[in-house]
Amino acid sequence: MIKCNANRLQKLIDLFSLFGKTDNNGVTRLSLSAEDIAARKKFQTLCEEIGMTVTYDDMGTMYATLPGKQNLPPIVIGSHLDSVVKGGRFDGVLGVLTALETVYTIKEEKIELDNPITIVNFTNEEGARFEPSLMASGVLSGKFDKAKMISSTDKNGISFAQALNESGFEGSEENRLKEASAYIELHIEQGPVLERRNLDIGVVVGVLGMVCYEISVYGESNHAGTTPINMRKDPMFTTANMIADMQKQLQRLDPDLVYTIGRINAYPNIHTVIPSEVSFTLEARHQDPEVIAEVSRIVERLPKNSNGCSIKSTLLWDRDTVDFNEEVINALEYTCKELGYKENRMYSGAGHDAQFIASYIPTAMIFVPSINGYSHREDELTSYEDCAKGANVLLNTVLTICREKVR
Amino acid sequence: MIKCNANRLQKLIDLFSLFGKTDNNGVTRLSLSAEDIAARKKFQTLCEEIGMTVTYDDMGTMYATLPGKQNLPPIVIGSHLDSVVKGGRFDGVLGVLTALETVYTIKEEKIELDNPITIVNFTNEEGARFEPSLMASGVLSGKFDKAKMISSTDKNGISFAQALNESGFEGSEENRLKEASAYIELHIEQGPVLERRNLDIGVVVGVLGMVCYEISVYGESNHAGTTPINMRKDPMFTTANMIADMQKQLQRLDPDLVYTIGRINAYPNIHTVIPSEVSFTLEARHQDPEVIAEVSRIVERLPKNSNGCSIKSTLLWDRDTVDFNEEVINALEYTCKELGYKENRMYSGAGHDAQFIASYIPTAMIFVPSINGYSHREDELTSYEDCAKGANVLLNTVLTICREKVR
Repeated sequence: MIKCNANRLQKLIDLFSLFGKTDNNGVTRLSLSAEDIAARKKFQTLCEEIGMTVTYDDMGTMYATLPGKQNLPPIVIGSHLDSVVKGGRFDGVLGVLTALETVYTIKEEKIELDNPITIVNFTNEEGARFEPSLMASGVLSGKFDKAKMISSTDKNGISFAQALNESGFEGSEENRLKEASAYIELHIEQGPVLERRNLDIGVVVGVLGMVCYEISVYGESNHAGTTPINMRKDPMFTTANMIADMQKQLQRLDPDLVYTIGRINAYPNIHTVIPSEVSFTLEARHQDPEVIAEVSRIVERLPKNSNGCSIKSTLLWDRDTVDFNEEVINALEYTCKELGYKENRMYSGAGHDAQFIASYIPTAMIFVPSINGYSHREDELTSYEDCAKGANVLLNTVLTICREKVR
Repeated sequence: MIKCNANRLQKLIDLFSLFGKTDNNGVTRLSLSAEDIAARKKFQTLCEEIGMTVTYDDMGTMYATLPGKQNLPPIVIGSHLDSVVKGGRFDGVLGVLTALETVYTIKEEKIELDNPITIVNFTNEEGARFEPSLMASGVLSGKFDKAKMISSTDKNGISFAQALNESGFEGSEENRLKEASAYIELHIEQGPVLERRNLDIGVVVGVLGMVCYEISVYGESNHAGTTPINMRKDPMFTTANMIADMQKQLQRLDPDLVYTIGRINAYPNIHTVIPSEVSFTLEARHQDPEVIAEVSRIVERLPKNSNGCSIKSTLLWDRDTVDFNEEVINALEYTCKELGYKENRMYSGAGHDAQFIASYIPTAMIFVPSINGYSHREDELTSYEDCAKGANVLLNTVLTICREKVR
């Protein structure tokens, strides 16, 4: 198997980390911001310099295509260039840059493929400026309504439609990604599993299904000093006991289940006042819908009343597990083995554009290790060595798929 | 025993509820605001109309004095005219207005007392605009440093000194309340006990000691979807279990102990992110210092580490129980019995100017029932009938004390 140029990839990563660079070596490159636009322009220039043709679709998603020898559907690789506020230098952009490095190497090695290779940069993956996340891939795959999406506004009241129009990256609907032989997205893991298990590569077999509830406990607000305990309807202690009890139940389910209470709010949240309400979110993710259903049953079995408080739960959202394409997964595993990389199959707990693209294109993902599992923070880190390993898997899988397609 | 004019008192309450009236029949009358200044001016006019002399001290506290027949220390009655944001029509102002009604009745009944009667309106009791609460009585009693107090700024950066100066109510230090025969403050209970026990009057024997801690649980923030449960340092579940466990321990202490977790904050408080930290306050109040010490021991016994999280507790503040003057308490009880009112001795769980004044003047308080125990909210309510009963207790206790003093 051939190898990418690790040094060139490192320079690419360092170059793109300058677009929206923060004081602490992170990146703020919100979708269609000046920083994002500058990164897009640089990326377009680099692609055009090696003979790729760059087009945009009506959501501003970029496609840089290297022609193939035959009139075949392309093999699509890439990710996204946008970031969250004070995000890291790897999330998203690494998938685009390893794709570029893949094409660099193919050109350098003078490999002529039957399939075109298309590098994709999905617009607004993060949803950090315009909600929701996965916006462009959601429209592409018919999951999101375009009219609704482009009317999404940022905190300054600027709509996605306006920002896209002003960016100069508004293309046509006919340029949308339609058929393709495969879509492969390389991404940082955003979790600690690969690092802890000393693995080089995660072969991502799908994206976990999830469910997210908001649970509200309503009591009675009163003065903390003047209200005897037995005359209180205190939602705080009720909540604490409820969370402790739910944890016991959740611990009994499958050990791969992840569950998180990330948000809690008390009202009025003053130390001398018994809260009138405590609300919190419970989200859980697992590949097996039956395990997710168990979580839902735990929430549904919560008492409606407890200690004088009333309890209400609301399903904020859920999503089904997305299973990726077995052939692409097998090609990734084969490549890892040939390269001698330690890999393991795994699900992605985080959402990615690939989960939507998988609905109409054979798709899988490559994960590279995240140091400490950190992501969406300025100290997000993947070693350059691991980045290069990921690029090698991407490159050789593309080659493998092309060979198989013409076989 | 004579009675106040309940109808006149009702009109006074209704009149003063116009100063800072909110849409929902509450009051926003922050200390030294335009609304507070207007209320003060009206109050001064009403006092002067009946021959009282009005002075201010260097913290802007108002004293309206009806001369006595003899050169004796005054009997001081009153409370405060300021309110919290969206507070009620009774908290504080009722103590000032029942004092005024007391003097009205004394004048109307042509009672000539040996002692002067002074109505006091303490500046900035609430601390809602300028922290801390009980500011002026704290300075009076030497508990607070005046220089520090007057440099306290509101959210617009205006200092107390500037606001006081511009209000026109800045008086001289020599006008400060010094010696007095007694200080009696009527106030709403701000708790549900009188109403629930069907009592007319609470004879307040002191103010509960308290302790307030902030407890912080530090874990590790990470992505909710990508971090396996066994690789987490999750401060949320650690906190919930800790609170549930502390509750069990607190429940075993004296049944009169009140304890509250009013404030909780998770960081970054995003549903898809395991928090890095969860912090909460625990405050507890009881008359017996040994019970408070038990609470402190529960906090001190918290583990320093649990489930991979580290735990830190900080004492935010504490105060000792203040016991009021037995002679004033007895006079209040005697009056209630003579008037045929159902009363009970009780501690105040809330802080009041009286707790500071008690350090150098024989002091006690009168509580009137709060419907549902509500206070510091727009629907704070005490029936006019109960207000009048309170005024009658205040009036007749003043008369009793005067008679006793000359006996």
